[in-house]
Amino acid sequence: MAKNKLTLIKVGGKIVEEEATLKQLLNDFSQIEGHKVLVHGGGRSATRIAEQLGIESKMVGGRRITDAKTLEVVTMVYGGLVNKNIVAGLQAFGVNALGLTGADMDVIRSEKRPVKEIDYGFAGDVKAVKAETLKMLIDKNIVPIMAPLTHDGKGHILNTNADTIAAETAQALSEYYDVTLVYCFEKKGVLKDEHDDDSVIPQLDKDLYKKYVDEGVITGGMLPKLDNAFRSLEKGVTEVVITLASGIGKDTGTRIVN
Amino acid sequence: MAKNKLTLIKVGGKIVEEEATLKQLLNDFSQIEGHKVLVHGGGRSATRIAEQLGIESKMVGGRRITDAKTLEVVTMVYGGLVNKNIVAGLQAFGVNALGLTGADMDVIRSEKRPVKEIDYGFAGDVKAVKAETLKMLIDKNIVPIMAPLTHDGKGHILNTNADTIAAETAQALSEYYDVTLVYCFEKKGVLKDEHDDDSVIPQLDKDLYKKYVDEGVITGGMLPKLDNAFRSLEKGVTEVVITLASGIGKDTGTRIVN
Repeated sequence: MAKNKLTLIKVGGKIVEEEATLKQLLNDFSQIEGHKVLVHGGGRSATRIAEQLGIESKMVGGRRITDAKTLEVVTMVYGGLVNKNIVAGLQAFGVNALGLTGADMDVIRSEKRPVKEIDYGFAGDVKAVKAETLKMLIDKNIVPIMAPLTHDGKGHILNTNADTIAAETAQALSEYYDVTLVYCFEKKGVLKDEHDDDSVIPQLDKDLYKKYVDEGVITGGMLPKLDNAFRSLEKGVTEVVITLASGIGKDTGTRIVN
Repeated sequence: MAKNKLTLIKVGGKIVEEEATLKQLLNDFSQIEGHKVLVHGGGRSATRIAEQLGIESKMVGGRRITDAKTLEVVTMVYGGLVNKNIVAGLQAFGVNALGLTGADMDVIRSEKRPVKEIDYGFAGDVKAVKAETLKMLIDKNIVPIMAPLTHDGKGHILNTNADTIAAETAQALSEYYDVTLVYCFEKKGVLKDEHDDDSVIPQLDKDLYKKYVDEGVITGGMLPKLDNAFRSLEKGVTEVVITLASGIGKDTGTRIVN
């Protein structure tokens, strides 16, 4: 039997933190047909609130070092401020949104990242996603809105990268659904020429990806993103799309397929 | 057919904000048999974080005046910090907790309080509780952990008194369950002599309450609490208990019955 379609959208902090872009996102997201899930970031708000509280934001390789005070900030900002504003906003658009962290119904269990060269503090690496719990909600037309927070099962919230939450959740849900994983990005998609915003590569499979990497067309920060996208495909996700937030629900961006 | 028993516990900010009392609460709450719901406050943390952010907390008659900045603070603190710490904590005690605001699955819809003598700002008066949605979760042994936040259905979170959330939710759930509503309090119960902490009135019905009020035994701040308790009984709640947090699950405190 064919699985039902599910669209999982990951949006960064920038989009959900400004009133105009948030409103557009809520509108676009509400138009998506079929089952859907939203995973959001919130780093900018966390940095802003931390600054107001006199807490320095330390980043290493784009990841936040989460000490005890910073954990308090991200728990407030991701789980409360950003998440609940999205949930209330979507309700106004007729979407039956439910805000979740990994601790809620134990949907995402993680493990504190081991200290190697860098001590990331209270950062969690995902161990298990309870897809059947999410399915129970989704099949009732409830739309999970997932904050980038997980828990260790021992009473601790852990800060967890939103891209990772999106990938792990999409993979777990692909047991039950035909999942399209959409990463909203600050560019129109994967570009052939980083100086030409319109040079979007419409579709990438593994062979073409390899070719573009060998030729030096795709480099830098796109490489881990695309490696992760292909890993999601290997783990059951049907397609991964990298696009602008304004491209949600439209046939734009770069589609990554097997 | 007899309804299943459900215990709805309301705890104030003080209990959930200190590590030792929170841990005791989580332990006691996890021991309660049958279906259960927790409603929490968080005013002290909100006041603390607001102060750190340079936002003055204005209270009138024990209620917070919620301007736009304060709404941001309570959304973060109640919906994020306090709620998610309780949820993660209960998961460690084997309780399948799910944190909710009124916006989540539209469980509590409210209306911005009209401005009369006092402008409470973004404060919500409860209009509707979706008991059937809560029942769907509760019957799957999911335990709702409710923050004192509601929404207006137009995209706005509203700050809402936790005692009111507890009463309205208990009343709505009494359609499906035999509901005991427990208010955790800083005293052992309703006292006959306010200077004697052991003078707890074990049981109060309307006649005895009227007698104690007429005699001047019960006065002051207890009056609105007890009026609300009797109103909950009229609206279907089986019994209301006023007790210390450490009295949860024990046969202590004051039982208010019809």
